[in-house]
Amino acid sequence: MLSVLRIGIGQTDPVVGDPDANLLMLRKLIREADANRIDVLVLPELANSGYAFESREEAVTLSETIPEGAYCKEMAKGSSGRVVVAGVCERTSEGLYNSAPLFMNGRHVLTYRKVHLFNREKEVFLPGESEPPVFEFGEYRLGLMICWDWIFPEMARILALKGAQVILHPANLVLPYCHRAMVTRSIENRVFTVTANRVGEERGLSFYGESQVVAPNGEVLLKMGGSDTGLAWVDIDPARADDKMMTERNHLLNDRRPRLYRRLVED
Amino acid sequence: MLSVLRIGIGQTDPVVGDPDANLLMLRKLIREADANRIDVLVLPELANSGYAFESREEAVTLSETIPEGAYCKEMAKGSSGRVVVAGVCERTSEGLYNSAPLFMNGRHVLTYRKVHLFNREKEVFLPGESEPPVFEFGEYRLGLMICWDWIFPEMARILALKGAQVILHPANLVLPYCHRAMVTRSIENRVFTVTANRVGEERGLSFYGESQVVAPNGEVLLKMGGSDTGLAWVDIDPARADDKMMTERNHLLNDRRPRLYRRLVED
Repeated sequence: MLSVLRIGIGQTDPVVGDPDANLLMLRKLIREADANRIDVLVLPELANSGYAFESREEAVTLSETIPEGAYCKEMAKGSSGRVVVAGVCERTSEGLYNSAPLFMNGRHVLTYRKVHLFNREKEVFLPGESEPPVFEFGEYRLGLMICWDWIFPEMARILALKGAQVILHPANLVLPYCHRAMVTRSIENRVFTVTANRVGEERGLSFYGESQVVAPNGEVLLKMGGSDTGLAWVDIDPARADDKMMTERNHLLNDRRPRLYRRLVED
Repeated sequence: MLSVLRIGIGQTDPVVGDPDANLLMLRKLIREADANRIDVLVLPELANSGYAFESREEAVTLSETIPEGAYCKEMAKGSSGRVVVAGVCERTSEGLYNSAPLFMNGRHVLTYRKVHLFNREKEVFLPGESEPPVFEFGEYRLGLMICWDWIFPEMARILALKGAQVILHPANLVLPYCHRAMVTRSIENRVFTVTANRVGEERGLSFYGESQVVAPNGEVLLKMGGSDTGLAWVDIDPARADDKMMTERNHLLNDRRPRLYRRLVED
């Protein structure tokens, strides 16, 4: 069993329209992950395709099926003895999804399809129709959400209620609010959060990096630069997230009052 | 009709066991509110009684009924042409509540009873059994929650779903996280938040003031000192909170996916 989990973030600068370049970035990161014994490698959203599509048609040409696509195959290969998560532009028979497939020990374990689409993504992708997933990696429980999901506190909360100790969060952030909000997400759920953001400019959009890992007490354990690419990592003890006591009488999740929250699920 | 709402925070240092001193603080603040044409005056939690009770019995002796009690009568008197909200240690036939009565134009309008009790409050108070309220003041809609409710994102969210433009938030804060989290509450709900915190020390507990008003975009519009007492105010346009568009395609509340949030209301 692992006693400490080494979380690696691959902060990249995907190139829209150049899947080969994006695949090379992934290969390079996986080599670095191997060299540094990374247990969980998280890449940004839409890491295979880039973000700022000119049209839905362009997105289709840059999409792939999960787990057969070239990017996914590379993720699978790189997941020996570890978890690899990255955003993938996913093609299905019903349409495209902004997805995050997760690979572990060479196998495809699950795919989360982004539930809350941001701005022009609504013209390209279908929204996911399932709550965000939690999965077991050895003794640890990892949750998954994508980018704009951050602004909906419901998402991180659902992951915490499902037992996530660490929330993996591939992102392509353009608004300036998320990083501070993820500190609140960590505190209000007593979980680790791992935001892997991209950098660079793409067709007028600017992405600001600063990928980060936040502890359950809100401490920022790792913060990357605003334009760096490459791998950074930090060792965490996910079991810290199992202690939900904020005071000797306050268990953060048991103190919730679900009967009084019904308005949250009204359509 | 008001076109701008002047929000006043009365940052105080209530004295446990000295209701007369606490009443004098209220009177002084109301005189200042009159002089400065405050529309909405918010005081800290348990402003009539102080916070750090030695026992439930002591809390009983410092409690009052709403709206008949001496502190409430003073709030009513001071609410001519305005809203006055303060935390009150409330006595009822079933027990004590950590409450926030709201007075407007000389009348008692409603009382919110704190739903999430903090630490030793659990030994003194009964928890409230209703969702947090929203009420109309002229053309504006004001919501109400108390202190530790801040850590439960469900509460501010419910208030936003009920139409609150401004969340009034009497508090007695001892943990250091709330002020930054309230910035997130403002952003994730696109509402103004008004946290009226107390200052001073009481039987080993230290309260850190820094009462604040935050705009829907997360901007801190007003921040008081860590030990000052007295009135501070800021003029806001609550209608700013009606614009829930984060991008031209993202309405923050309409983009929610309640059908996927059912886990939030499971017991």
